[in-house]
Amino acid sequence: MKLVRFTVEGRTRIGKLSGDRVIDLSAVQGMQGVGDSMRELLANLPALRAALEAEQGAAFALSEVKLEAPVNDPQKYLAIGLNYKAHAEEAKAAGVPIPSSQLWFNKQVSCISGPFDPIDLPSVVEKLDYEIELGVVIGKRCRNVKAADARAVIAGYLVTNDVTARDWQNRSPTFTLGKSFDTHGPIGPWLTTDDEIADPLALEMVLSVNGEARQRMTTGDMIYDIYAQIEYLSTVMTLEPGDILATGTPSGVGVAIGKLLQDGDVVRAQIEGLGHIENRVVASA
Amino acid sequence: MKLVRFTVEGRTRIGKLSGDRVIDLSAVQGMQGVGDSMRELLANLPALRAALEAEQGAAFALSEVKLEAPVNDPQKYLAIGLNYKAHAEEAKAAGVPIPSSQLWFNKQVSCISGPFDPIDLPSVVEKLDYEIELGVVIGKRCRNVKAADARAVIAGYLVTNDVTARDWQNRSPTFTLGKSFDTHGPIGPWLTTDDEIADPLALEMVLSVNGEARQRMTTGDMIYDIYAQIEYLSTVMTLEPGDILATGTPSGVGVAIGKLLQDGDVVRAQIEGLGHIENRVVASA
Repeated sequence: MKLVRFTVEGRTRIGKLSGDRVIDLSAVQGMQGVGDSMRELLANLPALRAALEAEQGAAFALSEVKLEAPVNDPQKYLAIGLNYKAHAEEAKAAGVPIPSSQLWFNKQVSCISGPFDPIDLPSVVEKLDYEIELGVVIGKRCRNVKAADARAVIAGYLVTNDVTARDWQNRSPTFTLGKSFDTHGPIGPWLTTDDEIADPLALEMVLSVNGEARQRMTTGDMIYDIYAQIEYLSTVMTLEPGDILATGTPSGVGVAIGKLLQDGDVVRAQIEGLGHIENRVVASA
Repeated sequence: MKLVRFTVEGRTRIGKLSGDRVIDLSAVQGMQGVGDSMRELLANLPALRAALEAEQGAAFALSEVKLEAPVNDPQKYLAIGLNYKAHAEEAKAAGVPIPSSQLWFNKQVSCISGPFDPIDLPSVVEKLDYEIELGVVIGKRCRNVKAADARAVIAGYLVTNDVTARDWQNRSPTFTLGKSFDTHGPIGPWLTTDDEIADPLALEMVLSVNGEARQRMTTGDMIYDIYAQIEYLSTVMTLEPGDILATGTPSGVGVAIGKLLQDGDVVRAQIEGLGHIENRVVASA
């Protein structure tokens, strides 16, 4: 399934994509307690799945709804830095050492925004950049998961743009604030469940700015693959349904090629099998 | 008020402290939609406050309830590093440079635990440490708050122990994983509302291990005070009711004085006017 959160007629709901239509799932038995929370849905997906797959109720044209962030209220939004070989090399050339173990940081949950929402460029940010990343969404509460078993805890995948204020990122070794401006976490366009993707480590990803390709790579170029990531994280912490992992960006980020984002730029991030998100940069006071 | 989350008779509820009793607030008009979520309560506190203060319903002896984390489901749990003068100096002596701006990182929300819950020492952690910190809990959704106005967005305060796996912290410049093991975020014992504290920057804090004082300082020794912290964070992100800020630890951490935590140690963290939390270190596989 391709699970969407969408707003139509003034109300946000969970639905599923069916061709160019969105089927409203909110009337399905058992969805009343879920509301529009994908986190709640994922926690209950095993019980609800058959009914959701069968539902053929109220449908809307994709063009008449507003798509929202597929997961807007995760407990955690974690991201790994310098996890593609060529990107680690381009960062090293700029003076950032290649990490000797997985380097995780948080994007604040408050930065999550919809797949076609604007990216805010506030006046306090001087160096705005993009980073396409495969987003992994956790489906099962888990701890101490071995890499060999990790795929079973994945609910599905989505496209993320780890929008970054480089000047703020570089003020602190922890990255935190430069990764967390409001609207700097566009994700979507929907959550593609794991069963629809043959191999999440063989997906082509392309990010373009105003139609010009800037990042192009397959997810197979990761240094630590998504299963190793889940093993490492779950050694430390309980992962929860709805948690989002941004699994690293390939080379071609703006700061490396001298092309940072400007007011009015349109950033499109697409991953094979997962669709695309597209966000316009809008300057603000 | 001193707002508590507590479990008795198999159910977790929100209450208020009254001497050595806890008054159950769950029957107060308007609390039905809040359940046991302090985050929900804080979002609705202005409307509910008078009724909560007046309530004189069902009471339990403090000794017969289990106190839970006052806030267990915040959207964000942020912490600032190297924010006390003497602590920044002791870290510098160990090779960690003094940051030139506020250094923020996340503790994962999943690490939050109750004020008297055990601290897990898993076999993968070699260097377990303590850090007493004044916890600030946000009460109002806000962005771009000036330091001069910041006190108005604070709901209240609590004691936090920013338990840290130093070996994991040092594997990565972002700190993230070393700060986020499950159970490494004990907080409490209750949320003391802002009106009960004359000056949050003049509170004595004492952390002891097995009765021996290790950290003793007033909150006035911060490099960036809590209002400057709120200004800086809210320049970047929307703060939400229930968000927790751990505002820095003073000198005397275990790694600096050569006394890391061991299985069986009892760590007590107390802040003037806010009470104390006490957690036993328990080794696990």
